[in-house]
Amino acid sequence: MSAAVEEFNAYREKMNSRILEDNNKIIKRIFNLDTNAYMKGALDVKTKELLGLVASAVLRCDDCVKYHLETCYKEGFLKEEVVEALSIATLIGGTIVIPHLRRAYEFWDELEQSSSKDTVLKE
Amino acid sequence: MSAAVEEFNAYREKMNSRILEDNNKIIKRIFNLDTNAYMKGALDVKTKELLGLVASAVLRCDDCVKYHLETCYKEGFLKEEVVEALSIATLIGGTIVIPHLRRAYEFWDELEQSSSKDTVLKE
Amino acid sequence: MSAAVEEFNAYREKMNSRILEDNNKIIKRIFNLDTNAYMKGALDVKTKELLGLVASAVLRCDDCVKYHLETCYKEGFLKEEVVEALSIATLIGGTIVIPHLRRAYEFWDELEQSSSKDTVLKE
Amino acid sequence: MSAAVEEFNAYREKMNSRILEDNNKIIKRIFNLDTNAYMKGALDVKTKELLGLVASAVLRCDDCVKYHLETCYKEGFLKEEVVEALSIATLIGGTIVIPHLRRAYEFWDELEQSSSKDTVLKE
Amino acid sequence: MSAAVEEFNAYREKMNSRILEDNNKIIKRIFNLDTNAYMKGALDVKTKELLGLVASAVLRCDDCVKYHLETCYKEGFLKEEVVEALSIATLIGGTIVIPHLRRAYEFWDELEQSSSKDTVLKE
Amino acid sequence: MSAAVEEFNAYREKMNSRILEDNNKIIKRIFNLDTNAYMKGALDVKTKELLGLVASAVLRCDDCVKYHLETCYKEGFLKEEVVEALSIATLIGGTIVIPHLRRAYEFWDELEQSSSKDTVLKE
Repeated sequence: MSAAVEEFNAYREKMNSRILEDNNKIIKRIFNLDTNAYMKGALDVKTKELLGLVASAVLRCDDCVKYHLETCYKEGFLKEEVVEALSIATLIGGTIVIPHLRRAYEFWDELEQSSSKDTVLKE
Repeated sequence: MSAAVEEFNAYREKMNSRILEDNNKIIKRIFNLDTNAYMKGALDVKTKELLGLVASAVLRCDDCVKYHLETCYKEGFLKEEVVEALSIATLIGGTIVIPHLRRAYEFWDELEQSSSKDTVLKE
Repeated sequence: MSAAVEEFNAYREKMNSRILEDNNKIIKRIFNLDTNAYMKGALDVKTKELLGLVASAVLRCDDCVKYHLETCYKEGFLKEEVVEALSIATLIGGTIVIPHLRRAYEFWDELEQSSSKDTVLKE
Repeated sequence: MSAAVEEFNAYREKMNSRILEDNNKIIKRIFNLDTNAYMKGALDVKTKELLGLVASAVLRCDDCVKYHLETCYKEGFLKEEVVEALSIATLIGGTIVIPHLRRAYEFWDELEQSSSKDTVLKE
Repeated sequence: MSAAVEEFNAYREKMNSRILEDNNKIIKRIFNLDTNAYMKGALDVKTKELLGLVASAVLRCDDCVKYHLETCYKEGFLKEEVVEALSIATLIGGTIVIPHLRRAYEFWDELEQSSSKDTVLKE
Repeated sequence: MSAAVEEFNAYREKMNSRILEDNNKIIKRIFNLDTNAYMKGALDVKTKELLGLVASAVLRCDDCVKYHLETCYKEGFLKEEVVEALSIATLIGGTIVIPHLRRAYEFWDELEQSSSKDTVLKE
């Protein structure tokens, strides 16, 4: 994995653990919902991840965008599909979304590089 | 069509005409993009409409939600699919999305009633 | 109760029922959390209601503001306490909060009039 | 004046009086700043009003937009200048600004009609 | 004090000085209001700080959250009280608040460590 | 140029190139509009840049603020004019704009230092 992806995931997991060990019921349930909401239901998992990505982008939450980019990547989305989703987010959310689009592109590149590096390492 | 749906569409069309007859280039092109962005590309039309719906819901724009509910309805989405998309929007956007969820439900009911009425009238 | 307060509550309850009868698990749990989060815990109920009011005000959600104004009213808050909370919301959220402040004041007046009318009717 | 403009101003003034008679110091000072900030300084009054309009539009506050449209109108802005400012707001804020643009256009029309009616009445 | 807390405060103070030495009247008065609004009034200081924290959290302003966490810490709030306030913010503001919750937890840890270190140093 | 300004511009240009080489039509057109919208029209270029700055500030987009600060600087705005525009943004957007105001001040200082350094080097 690329250093940037690893660092993002490590911080996320470390702090999520800190939060959850506190046992605040409301927060724990929201975290729990956050897992359940993206499971297969009337809509399939891929569609839901894309919805999560676009909602995160228009709300301009870089960490949320990164998280959903990573799950979209794992779900096998092509870059052009992800970019098309982000283009809709940029149109709806306006040019203030562009700085987040730049960081999203950078993170996607990291995800692709991680993956090709992983492939090389495994061989 | 139900009175509420008709009124919404009539106002929307009347004012869009007023805006476009003004010939402001930037606005005209944004309106143009707003049509093109939802056309079939790497993603299909249905997925794109759902992305538009969820982005509108988390940004809490009632008119945008109504517009995308109507196109989702025309694209043949089942209510439970639309509700699942809106449930993700409510989780991501928080309980402040709930008042918009209430109005979205009301408008979807109007769309369903319009449609059944239309069917009756056509027979 | 004043007509405005009654109408607000009636619509809210009617649409909440419509939403909940749909049995979307995520939405039902969010509604459930929305009740639990304001119950006595480390913080008392009054403080929590005031937090809900201020969060609603800075996010400029009129319906959420009305809902929390009503619960604040029932919890026995004095008007000057509520106004002081709203003054902090206006400072943090800026002058774009002012139109929502106007509607909050109007709704509080309705709540006070409802109550005095109720008192008169009961006598 | 058109009924819509009059109603908007009357409600605004009535509720502002209600708010100010309460003597909350923070709110009173914010209202006071709201007057002073748009007075001539390093920037002229017209530029400041246009800044207020665009900020209100991207934050999607209809009442704030109406207020600044009215002051822009009184300051003698041409419609195409106001529309150009709103086009920048729509580009920066995205297509979710469009419903607010429709209502802004409608209000500007009311302002123009009010004015021509006033002219006729004065003659 | 921990390095992170110190750095945050140092930057904040340095830039606030830069801003205030410029003598822009509107900005100076807003800064002044920002001090006065949290002083004891109809509501006590602790409640007001908690309102500031929750408003900052739902508006997803990391620096504002840090500032109010520090004042809450100094006012003697227990962690579970602060977490309960943040749980309401996360419910109202949705899962996009979670990345800010992670950073809030990290900063609170810094505040607690600073304090225990200070105690050790003073002995 | 100062290191901070250079780094900001370099990243911006690098990632914009990455985005544009992808040939997503919607995004390319939005980028194109983003150039055209600030050209001379009914309003002059300087006014438009100031509108872009204030819209970016109330939407709390640091990168957008930096970009418009740089163009405002190049257009010859005096610091007190820019500060006055930002004071209106802070009033409209509230105290949550203040952390962005601090970073805006810091970036403006960088722009001024860059410029004086450039002058020295050219001599």
